[in-house]
Amino acid sequence: MSINLTILGCHSATPRANAFPTAQYLEINNRHFLIDCGEGTQRQMRKYKVGFTKINHIFISHLHGDHFYGLIGLLSTYGILSREKELHIFGPKGIKEVTLLQLKISQSHAKYPLIFHELTSKESELIFEDDKVTVRTIPLKHRVYTNGYLFTEKEKPKKLHIDNINHYEEIDRADYNNIKAGKDIVLSTGEIVPNSELTLPPKKPLSYAFCSDTCYKPDIIPIIKNADLLYHEATFLADKTDLAKKTKHATTKEAALIAKEATVNKLIIGHYSGRYKDITLFKDEAQEIFKNTKLAEPGKVFKII
Amino acid sequence: MSINLTILGCHSATPRANAFPTAQYLEINNRHFLIDCGEGTQRQMRKYKVGFTKINHIFISHLHGDHFYGLIGLLSTYGILSREKELHIFGPKGIKEVTLLQLKISQSHAKYPLIFHELTSKESELIFEDDKVTVRTIPLKHRVYTNGYLFTEKEKPKKLHIDNINHYEEIDRADYNNIKAGKDIVLSTGEIVPNSELTLPPKKPLSYAFCSDTCYKPDIIPIIKNADLLYHEATFLADKTDLAKKTKHATTKEAALIAKEATVNKLIIGHYSGRYKDITLFKDEAQEIFKNTKLAEPGKVFKII
Repeated sequence: MSINLTILGCHSATPRANAFPTAQYLEINNRHFLIDCGEGTQRQMRKYKVGFTKINHIFISHLHGDHFYGLIGLLSTYGILSREKELHIFGPKGIKEVTLLQLKISQSHAKYPLIFHELTSKESELIFEDDKVTVRTIPLKHRVYTNGYLFTEKEKPKKLHIDNINHYEEIDRADYNNIKAGKDIVLSTGEIVPNSELTLPPKKPLSYAFCSDTCYKPDIIPIIKNADLLYHEATFLADKTDLAKKTKHATTKEAALIAKEATVNKLIIGHYSGRYKDITLFKDEAQEIFKNTKLAEPGKVFKII
Repeated sequence: MSINLTILGCHSATPRANAFPTAQYLEINNRHFLIDCGEGTQRQMRKYKVGFTKINHIFISHLHGDHFYGLIGLLSTYGILSREKELHIFGPKGIKEVTLLQLKISQSHAKYPLIFHELTSKESELIFEDDKVTVRTIPLKHRVYTNGYLFTEKEKPKKLHIDNINHYEEIDRADYNNIKAGKDIVLSTGEIVPNSELTLPPKKPLSYAFCSDTCYKPDIIPIIKNADLLYHEATFLADKTDLAKKTKHATTKEAALIAKEATVNKLIIGHYSGRYKDITLFKDEAQEIFKNTKLAEPGKVFKII
């Protein structure tokens, strides 16, 4: 069980030579997700050696260009690479129409199954679940309909405490599934061996919360509570709180407050406005409120094992 | 009168860390044009210090993603930069619908006038003309409807031969416009001073022909005849002539043949397939047929003064 998050892009919309709009590659519990896909994401994926073929699910937060204009290029590339596997796209309503029109007009219809999951709910909802991971939406507040995403590992079965099990000759492999499922074992003597003696607790499931773009929205705190890792946008320093309000973005201090109140383990901030030349100021400000704050930077990898 | 061509991107579609799809910035006779706009073009413009605001006309050859997926990002950026000037987009039919849908879905409608000139003709046609420059289409042959573009400086008026004019006291500034317009001057003595004595020939108008993507199509030769500068795609080396035919692309040798037959002054080749690691082979092969061949590379500038 682990999280491995690669920042592919972390700047806001205005293009600069060394700025890249939002995109992240998340490996969690052996699942591989792309989160947002600003222009140039596929080139960043090549640069940071992200395997294209591992990704089967793409989560788009909102339909501002700096979060999804790179999607169509990636989908076309999957066509060039002769992809055959299903690809699932999660994002706001409208993403299907615009994507299919672009593919049609380029005469590059996807030959692989392209499955859209269009979101419209303003409540947090479970949108993906398999045996390894769940994904829930985190309703955000921006100038257009926007969701963050909470990625959570599934609870694993208990681990066998082999040393203790070996004390009991009677217990054999046939019992292991029952033990993992939490059952006590009754010996032929009638003695009950409690499950707690035969098992070790499973590793705590990890979670990653992605929140961009959004203004300060404390009602997300219960959803992201105790996340191991939180990415929260911080477009502005605190001196631009008014501008943040107006444009429905967050400041460093607001992002840090969310992290603190949600008692997450680590905060990553990003989506820096182009007006700031020195992004270390973002870290300094956020750390006044939440010490374990890190800066998103292209190519940076955050690991939790 | 001059041509100043900056290559912003010159690779074919498959993304690589150091490859950029087609885009060129052309200054010709003090006009500023963008030709094609693959994903990431706006970032390349920043990198090579191309002024966004100078561009009022964008020419898209065809609607394959590697030639136009960067357009929507650029148009959105013009919105962020509060552009007010008209922007003209020339390209195949369909470009308007897909662009407007993308702007609508992002709720980033252009506040500046965005004027589409959709092309459908299979014959070469004059699509732009002002007092400095004309632009004609060059019908190409690719898997989808495609045009190249021929940019030609307008013929300038004749220059005044001031030394000769000064021999005639009678001729004054009031006559200059007539002289520039090619008229002879009749002196009070009845003597006719021929225009050729009073003028110097204007500098030859320059022309640039952009041809991508296309298979070998010799019927474009009359259109691009004697161009000062020709960009012609060469996706493959000659060993892949069959693949070029199949995918409707050109090889180095085919591009060079076109340049030779059209007796252009200089050939630039590009749109290299990702399969080739060493692009100098492209130059070697093309130069066997057309000596003055140069390789397109991101950031390279071709000047003609």
